[in-house]
Amino acid sequence: MISLPFDESAIRRARRLAETTPPDECDPRVEALVNELIGRVADKWTMIILEELEQQGTMRFTQLSRAVTGISQKMLTQTLRQMERDGMVTRKVHPVIPPHVDYTLTDLGKSLGAAFCGVWLWAEDNLARVAAAREAFDAR
Amino acid sequence: MISLPFDESAIRRARRLAETTPPDECDPRVEALVNELIGRVADKWTMIILEELEQQGTMRFTQLSRAVTGISQKMLTQTLRQMERDGMVTRKVHPVIPPHVDYTLTDLGKSLGAAFCGVWLWAEDNLARVAAAREAFDAR
Repeated sequence: MISLPFDESAIRRARRLAETTPPDECDPRVEALVNELIGRVADKWTMIILEELEQQGTMRFTQLSRAVTGISQKMLTQTLRQMERDGMVTRKVHPVIPPHVDYTLTDLGKSLGAAFCGVWLWAEDNLARVAAAREAFDAR
Repeated sequence: MISLPFDESAIRRARRLAETTPPDECDPRVEALVNELIGRVADKWTMIILEELEQQGTMRFTQLSRAVTGISQKMLTQTLRQMERDGMVTRKVHPVIPPHVDYTLTDLGKSLGAAFCGVWLWAEDNLARVAAAREAFDAR
């Protein structure tokens, strides 16, 4: 198991939260309101772009298109535009020759990245369990 | 603002975690490993089905198809099958006449639901900010 470089107490807090907050305590009214927003942000490409920008700071479109493996130019353009519209990134056009465009996370985008940290921890902890489940399923 | 029925200290812990865990501390090696898994679970339909099953416990296919607004039968079938393969739900066929099938979250599925709670809290806190960003974007 590769260990995450989070501070130990932050990891303990995240684990305690996951244990002490049964998911069935979620309020259905809140869920109806946030479903649309979750549907937008819980998108594979949005999450991966968010992570790249978190690590690299500002990135040009061409850098992002190399860093995000498997994304098409069209999907990258579309996802960045939605993220800009949702207030997650700022887009800056540099009027040089040739012109270039770069993207930076806003504070709102950074806070979403932090909120997703619990999910990354979960994925790290449970990679082996999911792999075992898939193997068992495929062997049936 | 609608308040979530989480225990106050759990909410404080989640917020402290989001503040004290800068997203740029994420380890790129771990991220490469979990990208594929995240890509699978950070899917709008997976998240909404997870929430429905958390609230209702066991549900029949037909109940799910009514509860998850906007999902097609084909997409529901496909998403449930992937969730079963990933070890998130168990599928039980009842040999009655007419036969029916129901779905229940596993412990693994419940733990993913708990990990997503930070994202739901983020969405609740930031609905207004995202709405304002969209309005400003659309007015340009």
